This record gives sequence, structure tokens and C-alpha cells, in this order.
Amino acid sequence: MNLKDYIAIVEGFPKEGISFKDITPLMENGEAYRYTIDEMARLATEMGAQIIVSPESRGFLFGCPVATKLGLGFVPVRKKGKLPRATKSIKYDLEYGQDELFIHADAIKPGQKVVIIDDIVAIGGTLNAAAKLVQSLQGEVVGMIALIGLKDLPGLKLLAKYNLKALIVD
Amino acid sequence: MNLKDYIAIVEGFPKEGISFKDITPLMENGEAYRYTIDEMARLATEMGAQIIVSPESRGFLFGCPVATKLGLGFVPVRKKGKLPRATKSIKYDLEYGQDELFIHADAIKPGQKVVIIDDIVAIGGTLNAAAKLVQSLQGEVVGMIALIGLKDLPGLKLLAKYNLKALIVD
Repeated sequence: MNLKDYIAIVEGFPKEGISFKDITPLMENGEAYRYTIDEMARLATEMGAQIIVSPESRGFLFGCPVATKLGLGFVPVRKKGKLPRATKSIKYDLEYGQDELFIHADAIKPGQKVVIIDDIVAIGGTLNAAAKLVQSLQGEVVGMIALIGLKDLPGLKLLAKYNLKALIVD
Repeated sequence: MNLKDYIAIVEGFPKEGISFKDITPLMENGEAYRYTIDEMARLATEMGAQIIVSPESRGFLFGCPVATKLGLGFVPVRKKGKLPRATKSIKYDLEYGQDELFIHADAIKPGQKVVIIDDIVAIGGTLNAAAKLVQSLQGEVVGMIALIGLKDLPGLKLLAKYNLKALIVD
């Protein structure tokens, strides 16, 4: 199955000059969506995943089904004000300005093998921040999986040290 | 398995007087999370689901794994500015003020049987708005599933007409 056939390109979203990869047609197709999760689950197993972490909210679309397919726990990385218990946080740079991500401080056990899953890797800032959050809890990032890696942007190279696999490189 | 054992109660979040039901301990436990998805998938099958719809972002935590387990498509209902193609939208009342939700205009086929899945039913405004969006595309809402239904708030009663099932009523 060629997953790229299920990605819509929307020019000028969210702003002029951006060629947006829209993953919703893939998810609307039950066969393509399940195939995607099966492939990601196979990779996560090869990586030795003991728990799955994804950033909100599009990371949840892929990380959660992989976790339940494998019978593993799932830990969300979220924006400010969303996680109710004690958290660790990290600030990271966006194209313009900064953002901050949070993880529950007790969510990862020391030494636990973590695979981080997201939809798209562009500059890699979100996944890199998620990896640092996991490491701050003494988790071991054994791999990262994305549906799409954008080959003209620096994320794929930046995150290669985390054993990043993208199902589509485009 | 008593799923209630995996829900943490956090007093005073997000503000004083609120007793917040924290679902993250359930998801961190691979066995409890998978059991939850298995139960929801069983209900969705009984309801005759042909496609799954969930509101962002906590709805994704349950709706997506149910969709891929059953080999069904998944359609996200999202906040403003998130969906890149033509949308339908609906405004609905919150405790204070209004919010607006969006669905891709081509996401549901006329007559398609839809099950809507979310984490928690409180006053039911989000799920009710999601149902109206589905109906505006001529989809048929054959059921709703939530992890938790709060018995002291009006959502469970309001949504009974949509065949709402909650795994935990508390």
C-alpha cells in the first residue's frame, strides 16, 4: 500500500507559502489507517518499546492505536494547563517565538524503553522536546516513529540520533 | 477489571471547586487501556458503526484505537483553524461563553452510520455539537461511547437519545 496516495496537499494552509500535508484522508480510510498503525507497531516492537509517548494532539492519532495494539501504556505530552498532576516541562523554539511542553512527572519509570510517535516531522522541535522530557524522567528513548518526514527540513537529520523512522519521506 | 480504579481524582483542577477525573493512569497501564478499547470496540460493533468520530483532543485517545481495531475510518472534530479543507462548523454554549467545532465537509457520506467517542461526558455540549455536525453531513449517529459519564451533570440525560454508553458512571 502506498500511503502517500492518502495524503492530501493543501496549498496556502495555515498561511501563504505553506504546502500543508493533510493526513485526514488517510485516517478516513479504514484500511489505510489500520495498515499505518500495523507498520508503526511493527517498528515499535523492533525498537523494543515498553511504553509509547506522543505529543498532543495529532500525535495521539497514531501513538494511541499503536499502544493499544501492542498492549503497552501510553503517555501524553501536552501543552500548558492540560495535565492535572505534578509535571516536568521544557521550553523549545518555534519558527517564531517559543512553546512549552509538559509530561506528568511520574509517567515514565527510570530505565523504561520509550518510543515517541508523531504525525509529521518538519523542523523536529516538538519531538526533540518530547525526547528531552522523557530523558528528564530517566526514560530511555529507543526510537521515534512518524507518518511523514519532510526531507527538505532539518527534523529528519536532527532526530536521526533517536533512531527516527518515517513511513513516508517526502 | 474495574476501570474506576485507574482514574485519579485531582481536587481543584483546573480551578477551585472542581474534582477532576484524570484518565492518564488508565492509559499508562497497558492492560487497562487495551481493555477499555476492547470494550468500546465491542459496543461500537453492536451499534453498527461504519466510521468513528471523536472531538479533539482527548476524544482521540479512545476513538482512534477503536477505529483501527475495527478497521474503520476515523474523522476528527476539531477547533478553529485546525482542519485545512472545506469545513462545516457549529457554535455551542459552554459554562461561560461559546465555543465552535469543525468537521471536514466531505468526511462523512450521507447515510453512513457513525459512532462518536469521547473521554468524559459532563454537560454533554461537545458530544451534542459533534452529533449535530455529523447530522449536517447527513450521517446517522447510531451511538455514542464515553469512558466516564458524570451522573450529577446533565450530559448523560441530554445524550440518551443518541444511545450513549459510558463504561464508568460516577
